[in-house]
Amino acid sequence: MEKIKRNERLGAMTRILTDTPNRIHTLGEFCELFGAAKSTISEDIDLVSASFERFDLGRIETVAGAAGGVRFRAIPSQEKIRRVLNDIASRLSEPGRMLPGGFLYNSDISAESDVARQIGEILASQYYEKKPHFVLTMETKGIPIALMTARMLDVPLVIARRDSRAYEGSAVKINYIAGGGSERIETMALTRRAVSPGQRALIIDDFMKGGGTLQGMVDLMKEFLAEVVGVGVMIATAKPRDKRVSGVRSLLVLEGFDDETGRAIVHPAPEYM
Amino acid sequence: MEKIKRNERLGAMTRILTDTPNRIHTLGEFCELFGAAKSTISEDIDLVSASFERFDLGRIETVAGAAGGVRFRAIPSQEKIRRVLNDIASRLSEPGRMLPGGFLYNSDISAESDVARQIGEILASQYYEKKPHFVLTMETKGIPIALMTARMLDVPLVIARRDSRAYEGSAVKINYIAGGGSERIETMALTRRAVSPGQRALIIDDFMKGGGTLQGMVDLMKEFLAEVVGVGVMIATAKPRDKRVSGVRSLLVLEGFDDETGRAIVHPAPEYM
Repeated sequence: MEKIKRNERLGAMTRILTDTPNRIHTLGEFCELFGAAKSTISEDIDLVSASFERFDLGRIETVAGAAGGVRFRAIPSQEKIRRVLNDIASRLSEPGRMLPGGFLYNSDISAESDVARQIGEILASQYYEKKPHFVLTMETKGIPIALMTARMLDVPLVIARRDSRAYEGSAVKINYIAGGGSERIETMALTRRAVSPGQRALIIDDFMKGGGTLQGMVDLMKEFLAEVVGVGVMIATAKPRDKRVSGVRSLLVLEGFDDETGRAIVHPAPEYM
Repeated sequence: MEKIKRNERLGAMTRILTDTPNRIHTLGEFCELFGAAKSTISEDIDLVSASFERFDLGRIETVAGAAGGVRFRAIPSQEKIRRVLNDIASRLSEPGRMLPGGFLYNSDISAESDVARQIGEILASQYYEKKPHFVLTMETKGIPIALMTARMLDVPLVIARRDSRAYEGSAVKINYIAGGGSERIETMALTRRAVSPGQRALIIDDFMKGGGTLQGMVDLMKEFLAEVVGVGVMIATAKPRDKRVSGVRSLLVLEGFDDETGRAIVHPAPEYM
């Protein structure tokens, strides 16, 4: 096989690793692709790794053992997390975003692929050690950030639906208390084949007020005998203080709205400030 | 500023370019980041570009002019498109995916971030020249591939909802004829602020049978005085031959189901075979 020079390898290797976040590639895979020795590929990886660290671009990690190799994780620095969250908070504070019932119009921003990707990177980086098998969200607004979180973790996304008719065959349907102060009883449904007993679920949504929808997802996972290893949201309201579900990690806090201007008062959660 | 060596620049530059598909970065941006001359950065770009071409990893393109610079587009080769579509077709042909009404259970596969990303790369690559301002989809199943298409084009994703109550303030609601042979009249809604008159819309969905939902999205765009520059789906059924909407680009074709095994007969559309 023709040998590929280091200058030609580095770009290709970076692209392959970063395009499959959290997936382990063996050194042998790169040796074969580039016609290079393992020691040479190891040096390449060290170079890319050092450059990522220097410019805050995520981590290239070497994983030891029989199933070992090298993987990319888009773990942002605290400084980068702070910058990203402050940018989003400032956009959410633009005029005209107040909705009745203490809600915030955020679906345009959280459906931007760049925002969804950045939020996905931050959320995923909190849960690598929990090794979730899949990410669960409930339609609709949380799907973009849940998908990007799933992408960073390299696991499937599972979407619960409002209507069990969306599925054919066996589906599990539960009732939950929807938010908005109206305390409506709503249903959510999920096809039986989406989840296997004993799997680890990471629950992700864009917005939490009372926590009813999230608690619904927790209850849904009980029905499937799946373990919830984390619950993460982009924004949580400061009030009510007591949420229906506990242990939720929120990246941003919505304190409320300015009485005069109607602008949202949003800031990064204390641990990210 | 301390000079960064080429070996350290190449990985970082690749990561920055591929993380923001279709976004133009000026050479000056990299000169500043790396403390290098423009001619040096140009050589770096040529190296990354050649390596991407060689390994079918997309394109690094230099854009001339005042707003010029360099950008990454994840355009896959015909060979790669064929491989990706054949893989997906083969998974969709697994037993147990037949749904009543000639539908196919595909939501687990199209919600896999890897599949959504690959489909998004292929769909986006068909529409770069149309310069859409945003991607439009209707909730729920099409959101993952629509988001990834939007990401590759570097434009926002706009999600039409089933229920206008999902929006507060001014929303446009239209009726459309939903599929499934039952010819139900359904509604779709979109908040006024999502789209401005004269914008170019790319409509993306996961599945088309009669084309009623897609035609609904086309009608919705008329209400907003937006121009539809393309309609793309992951899978279209072979029957009915006449769809409610014309000019749809479909990546895969569902011919039907095998009477004995119940397996779906799916293949890449002729232009990708």
